[in-house]
Amino acid sequence: MARRLVLGTLVMPNGHHGAGWRHPDARFGGDESFDFYRGIAQTLERGLFDVLFLQDQVCVRDHGGVEVQSRANITAHLEPLTLLSALSVVTRNLGLVATASTTYNEPYHVARLFASLDHLSGGRAGWNAVTSFTDAEAHNFGREAHLDHDTRYDRAREFVGLVRDLWDSWDDDAFVRDKASGRYFLPGRLHVLNHRGRHFAVKGPLNVPRSPQGHPVIFQAGASADGLDLAAATAEVVYAAAQAKADAQAYYTTLKARAAALGRPPGLPLILPGLHAIVGRTEAEAKAKYRALLDLVDPVVGLAQLSMFFTVDLSGHPLDGPVPDVPLTQGHRSRQKLLLDLARRENLTLRQLIGHVANGLGHLTIVGTAARIADVMQDWFQDGAADGFNILPPYLPGGIDDFVDLVVPELQARGLTRTAYDGRTLRENLGLARPANRFTPAPAPAALAPA
Amino acid sequence: MARRLVLGTLVMPNGHHGAGWRHPDARFGGDESFDFYRGIAQTLERGLFDVLFLQDQVCVRDHGGVEVQSRANITAHLEPLTLLSALSVVTRNLGLVATASTTYNEPYHVARLFASLDHLSGGRAGWNAVTSFTDAEAHNFGREAHLDHDTRYDRAREFVGLVRDLWDSWDDDAFVRDKASGRYFLPGRLHVLNHRGRHFAVKGPLNVPRSPQGHPVIFQAGASADGLDLAAATAEVVYAAAQAKADAQAYYTTLKARAAALGRPPGLPLILPGLHAIVGRTEAEAKAKYRALLDLVDPVVGLAQLSMFFTVDLSGHPLDGPVPDVPLTQGHRSRQKLLLDLARRENLTLRQLIGHVANGLGHLTIVGTAARIADVMQDWFQDGAADGFNILPPYLPGGIDDFVDLVVPELQARGLTRTAYDGRTLRENLGLARPANRFTPAPAPAALAPA
Repeated sequence: MARRLVLGTLVMPNGHHGAGWRHPDARFGGDESFDFYRGIAQTLERGLFDVLFLQDQVCVRDHGGVEVQSRANITAHLEPLTLLSALSVVTRNLGLVATASTTYNEPYHVARLFASLDHLSGGRAGWNAVTSFTDAEAHNFGREAHLDHDTRYDRAREFVGLVRDLWDSWDDDAFVRDKASGRYFLPGRLHVLNHRGRHFAVKGPLNVPRSPQGHPVIFQAGASADGLDLAAATAEVVYAAAQAKADAQAYYTTLKARAAALGRPPGLPLILPGLHAIVGRTEAEAKAKYRALLDLVDPVVGLAQLSMFFTVDLSGHPLDGPVPDVPLTQGHRSRQKLLLDLARRENLTLRQLIGHVANGLGHLTIVGTAARIADVMQDWFQDGAADGFNILPPYLPGGIDDFVDLVVPELQARGLTRTAYDGRTLRENLGLARPANRFTPAPAPAALAPA
Repeated sequence: MARRLVLGTLVMPNGHHGAGWRHPDARFGGDESFDFYRGIAQTLERGLFDVLFLQDQVCVRDHGGVEVQSRANITAHLEPLTLLSALSVVTRNLGLVATASTTYNEPYHVARLFASLDHLSGGRAGWNAVTSFTDAEAHNFGREAHLDHDTRYDRAREFVGLVRDLWDSWDDDAFVRDKASGRYFLPGRLHVLNHRGRHFAVKGPLNVPRSPQGHPVIFQAGASADGLDLAAATAEVVYAAAQAKADAQAYYTTLKARAAALGRPPGLPLILPGLHAIVGRTEAEAKAKYRALLDLVDPVVGLAQLSMFFTVDLSGHPLDGPVPDVPLTQGHRSRQKLLLDLARRENLTLRQLIGHVANGLGHLTIVGTAARIADVMQDWFQDGAADGFNILPPYLPGGIDDFVDLVVPELQARGLTRTAYDGRTLRENLGLARPANRFTPAPAPAALAPA
């Protein structure tokens, strides 16, 4: 089978442009209306997407005080696992992926929620395993400050392994439910972990039967050294960020090589850079859309967001002066470097950098026709920079309508994406193998048939 | 409006009779098939039920070793919040209530999940707040043994209050999303808790907008002294267990009086005893069903369950001898007393007690025609023993079909239950007020109009 470009999208209630919610076509009520998300999910299935992804933080981000915060767009919204469970009922083929933090959760809860979503969706669940690095999250879980980087990643490694082991608590055929004999499950098909590690002690077994995919698909987004190591060892799909193809290629090559060195199957993990796509029927229409969005950016909000992003107060610096030197800090370190490199390379003012950040927070932004966007996607896909893309629409639902109506047919015409769903599960659609149960003894080799 | 009998049901994948899953009409696949639950939910809406309730434990119960365990019926199943979220899409009026433990959860997660379910369902969520008292659960969360009774309840009190405060993080009208001015929410309509208590430090705010019901409905099931206190102070609906009407009346009177003494509104909390109903078109048909179920009980499993229930090993005692004296222990103390009282009163053998426990674990069991079942329900409802019932069908889906097809019309004919849904939210259907936001200043009194 020809290699196929993976299409996913990260659904943020108000889109990925900082001012997207103010666009005339943006729909209100996106924060808590199920109909809004239902419409988007069904549009994505019409576009034969692989993945609908919901990111998550366990806090309301505070952008420098309530006055500024009240002018920013990401505040309060539906919880991802409940929303994806509801969406599982109104979709048939779309992968349903959510972030859940390894820092402020318990492995038993996370294993259960995603296994249950995998059952409900008939095998379409994925877990984006992240670490949490903001104090705002720490403050909701009894901590004064977030965990240091090393502890977070050490905990994350143990957490992910433990969740996968919990998913193997039962063999696929454990439940026989034999009314006549009264045997509900086969005793030998139950596996109790008795895990005792540095961060967790979990006996098991999980109280959910093994799910259709065996394991929901593991997504990650690590870009730090530890993040790369974790992704190389355990991720099946990785969300990436790059502005320049060369950077994307370097990341792609590095991560695939590290994974191969660890004995992972060829091609893993799949790598999906974010793509903030502003699509027009003509170049002029796309540029006008871009300009209109830029004009709606509130510089005070932008400066506060940039300050938060660099964890340094930039409010004293003139908007039309150069981007000041700031030290890289924990958490967003790799994305901070990406933005500072961009500012230096293009000699940006602070206001211009705010405009860039408003475009999908430093992700690759393409403004243009479907053909132009497809050109870049095809080039990155065929030249070792991407296995697909995480599409970041600037506003909703129009931004995703544009992509599905205009760009997807162009990708299909080039033979890059599917023209019909062929798999039943997310793994099948992504070409990922269903994991064997690590606790199930390998079957005895079949005897050679006599000649 | 006339007082109306509340109808709920606790959906266990294999019904409430210990051998229910072995009944010829029990449907397999109940553990993880969404279609199975969808069918039940839609039957309940046909019967104009108020509540579909899913209980929960964060473990697989171990009934005395894997061999015995493999013959028992409650093992692994879908996670409640994900399942209810999916069911919210295929129902319109049914209340969706799930248990979540205050012992092995964080308030921020619980507040989010139920607020999100309340949005998804258009105001039909309820939270059954429990404490966890089994070692099997402790072992999945890094603890050697469960927390002691006092600590559990102290934590539960703080937990429930904190969750309700988190639900008030935003005023109902906080989100204005004014595109023109760029104002997303009104700064004065955001309330940051800065909670610092004995068990939790949670800053807030919750990252979910205030939900349609303001607060999802609070359910509880406490029967210990501390459980009663917590229910009197905070519960809006209480699940109860009684075999005899006099016991139900005593519980009803006590709990309502305690709540009234705390200044709760009249009538709160609503009290719903469990009712294990084995329904037949004739008395003979019902009795035959009861007998058939009893014959399917596995005495070894029953003895192990009873041992677990009393936290003492009963396997050395002869099945056809008397029920031995056992000390009451933590956790199930009130239910243990109920069963021992029953055994003494009716001079039961151990095997007979196993048969009783198989019938809805000590809940009131009625075997008979719709008229006979409705007689008891009406009597308890009109004589100060119940505000409604938590129906416990012996097996699924037939047990709930029987109740809806046979008993509900009888209750309707007597004017005890509704003949059409009249409310949009669970609160409206139960006749419960929508809570004001405790952080919102009361509106200034309207000026008196001049004469």
